[in-house]
Amino acid sequence: MGFDQGILPDVSGLTAGIIGGTGDQGRGLAVRLAAAGQHVLIGSRTADRAISAAKEIAELARASTMTPGTVEGDGNAEVAERADVVIVAVPYEGHADTLTALREPLRGKIVVDCVNPLGFDRQGPFALTVPEGSAAQQAMSLLPESRVCAAFHHVSASLLADPGVARIDLDVLVLGDDREAVQVVQALAARIPGMRGVHAGRLRNAAQVEAFTANLIAINKRYGAHAGIRITDL
Amino acid sequence: MGFDQGILPDVSGLTAGIIGGTGDQGRGLAVRLAAAGQHVLIGSRTADRAISAAKEIAELARASTMTPGTVEGDGNAEVAERADVVIVAVPYEGHADTLTALREPLRGKIVVDCVNPLGFDRQGPFALTVPEGSAAQQAMSLLPESRVCAAFHHVSASLLADPGVARIDLDVLVLGDDREAVQVVQALAARIPGMRGVHAGRLRNAAQVEAFTANLIAINKRYGAHAGIRITDL
Repeated sequence: MGFDQGILPDVSGLTAGIIGGTGDQGRGLAVRLAAAGQHVLIGSRTADRAISAAKEIAELARASTMTPGTVEGDGNAEVAERADVVIVAVPYEGHADTLTALREPLRGKIVVDCVNPLGFDRQGPFALTVPEGSAAQQAMSLLPESRVCAAFHHVSASLLADPGVARIDLDVLVLGDDREAVQVVQALAARIPGMRGVHAGRLRNAAQVEAFTANLIAINKRYGAHAGIRITDL
Repeated sequence: MGFDQGILPDVSGLTAGIIGGTGDQGRGLAVRLAAAGQHVLIGSRTADRAISAAKEIAELARASTMTPGTVEGDGNAEVAERADVVIVAVPYEGHADTLTALREPLRGKIVVDCVNPLGFDRQGPFALTVPEGSAAQQAMSLLPESRVCAAFHHVSASLLADPGVARIDLDVLVLGDDREAVQVVQALAARIPGMRGVHAGRLRNAAQVEAFTANLIAINKRYGAHAGIRITDL
């Protein structure tokens, strides 16, 4: 009943693909997962950009461990096809179009949406209204044959990419209705030193997790921090 | 720039009123604030119920300290009139009507909304749609001459009321556009052992904080916990 990471599956042999892997969030997650020994595929609209980003990411991962996982770059469709778990880290503006184009290669795959639909104005960040309720529910509606989860919303891209930061102490909230897929994503999060993966409810409760990133950005601005969250009493 | 509770005002002399103080959340907050030495006024629709609840709350507060603040009961309007800071802890169903009726006595007061607009069905909790965006924004719209903040959404009522629990380690997220009022509420939260009050953005970013209570309830059910959150890197 209690929180026990020991029950999570061994995901060390899985290939993690990152759609939008050349953006800040995707690149940062790629560095940490590769440093943890995961085999990582970087996806971009053009394979050339992905291949060049993969080289940089591999070097950053090697800076923190002698035995990183391999990092390769490829086009988004090829990454979706080849990976076991596919992290979607594209800007919200391109989210629906990107996923629609990848529906076929993403069939049957565990898809991890980490997109935060946010706007910014003079008063700072705010949550955008998403017709489907949340980016994660949009993904579920566009990818009916994929196993859609949502996670990694609150992880600071600059901490992820900073080789001077050995641990990132926070909880990755994993949303999803497919319990087995959720556990794979929890285990993947737990591969990164300092992180736990916590099942934080169904996809219909993803909107507030995505939107809460606006509050973390406000906190960062107010206090000069790289804020994340920990769930207490777990 | 960093997080420093030392800059917060001294609120030990303020009277905290609790509208809906006979409900679980209000009662629990009242116990902790009284135990911290705060003068607390319990409000209810009928003063008799408030007076009887105040007696129980005072006893529970005395169980954890020899020198609790005084606890009195009164009608909601009288509590709104007499208190310096007024915590609104009513069920969402009665939220708009209760505040509308209290507009006059709440003029100029710091109002702390801690209402979570949630629904429940067979799949568990989910966030309700609030026309104004959030309960806090509804309060702001109904009480244009009050200093509306939002806070205390994530505090477990059962932990609050349990005299065996000496500390509750979590962060109280305080939302608000009135910086001075926000700091008073932060300081009030910090009176409760284990808690910090963190300014987590403007009222327009309150909806996701309210809705996130659904995720915490899902986590509690999944892991058998009384989950709260801590902001990391502060």
